[in-house]
Amino acid sequence: MNDHTKQDATRRLASAAGHIRGIERMVADDAYCIDVIKQIQAVQAALNKVSTMLLDNHLRTCVTTAIQGDDAEEREKMLQEITSVFAVTGKK
Amino acid sequence: MNDHTKQDATRRLASAAGHIRGIERMVADDAYCIDVIKQIQAVQAALNKVSTMLLDNHLRTCVTTAIQGDDAEEREKMLQEITSVFAVTGKK
Amino acid sequence: MNDHTKQDATRRLASAAGHIRGIERMVADDAYCIDVIKQIQAVQAALNKVSTMLLDNHLRTCVTTAIQGDDAEEREKMLQEITSVFAVTGKK
Amino acid sequence: MNDHTKQDATRRLASAAGHIRGIERMVADDAYCIDVIKQIQAVQAALNKVSTMLLDNHLRTCVTTAIQGDDAEEREKMLQEITSVFAVTGKK
Repeated sequence: MNDHTKQDATRRLASAAGHIRGIERMVADDAYCIDVIKQIQAVQAALNKVSTMLLDNHLRTCVTTAIQGDDAEEREKMLQEITSVFAVTGKK
Repeated sequence: MNDHTKQDATRRLASAAGHIRGIERMVADDAYCIDVIKQIQAVQAALNKVSTMLLDNHLRTCVTTAIQGDDAEEREKMLQEITSVFAVTGKK
Repeated sequence: MNDHTKQDATRRLASAAGHIRGIERMVADDAYCIDVIKQIQAVQAALNKVSTMLLDNHLRTCVTTAIQGDDAEEREKMLQEITSVFAVTGKK
Repeated sequence: MNDHTKQDATRRLASAAGHIRGIERMVADDAYCIDVIKQIQAVQAALNKVSTMLLDNHLRTCVTTAIQGDDAEEREKMLQEITSVFAVTGKK
């Protein structure tokens, strides 16, 4: 992972964790359920951003190296992994 | 929100926040990007459970009260809110 | 289902089916994969609209009737069904 | 697109279009809304399969060629496209 991605992902993950702590307080304070659900949806969207950023970084580093390299098995593993996280994202 | 839902949601949110802190450490330790993405997807699935649980509780309390009550405007607001969180979930 | 929802849903479903037929032709004509995927995503978004519209109608008719009625079992079934389609949508 | 993917995608798209036509008939016959929504969700899951299959093919052909090639701009375009369909899928 390059440094910029690492810092950006870390910052966004810390923010998501903080957001969830805030949602816990909303629940403790008997906030309106729909407002809580909306905040949960906002965290999920923020996490999608992190995944997308990490995938972008992964494609530019490991996947590019594997595709340019000679190890067919490694290349195959890389491609299957991308397809697999794409499939799960479509289900989430 | 009834007490059982409140406790269960709080416990699951605390666990999701802890999970995200763990993902931050994975990023700090240069974990493999695809593994990080899979953990993020696991948190998102866990958050979906919380939303579903809160919606269930909401339907049994506020929505039921509104539909059985006489305030047409309140009822309308409730129904639109449910449709709206459903639409967003379909987009996330 | 009220008449307006029925007509609107039918029109949107026919349009989605036509859209998919168009995507079949794109595949036959060797269109660029990413363009095909984007069209598939557009159909999925259009289908989400139909689901949301049907849910809205369902809440205003069957669910309202059940919640105002005396059949506790029927009411319970209705609420569980809504939670269940919400949970699946979050996974898709 | 290789021939196998082309045939498989075509067959699945035709099946999805037929499925939607069936859903139109359900609406015409006043089927229960929740049953209609479940069928729509099944079509969306089937379409996800097609997208995943096309992405897999795309990675093995165009993306591999671009990454092994000398055209930096083309390579950049490919990587951005993958990230972009991934991001949209996460929102759908």
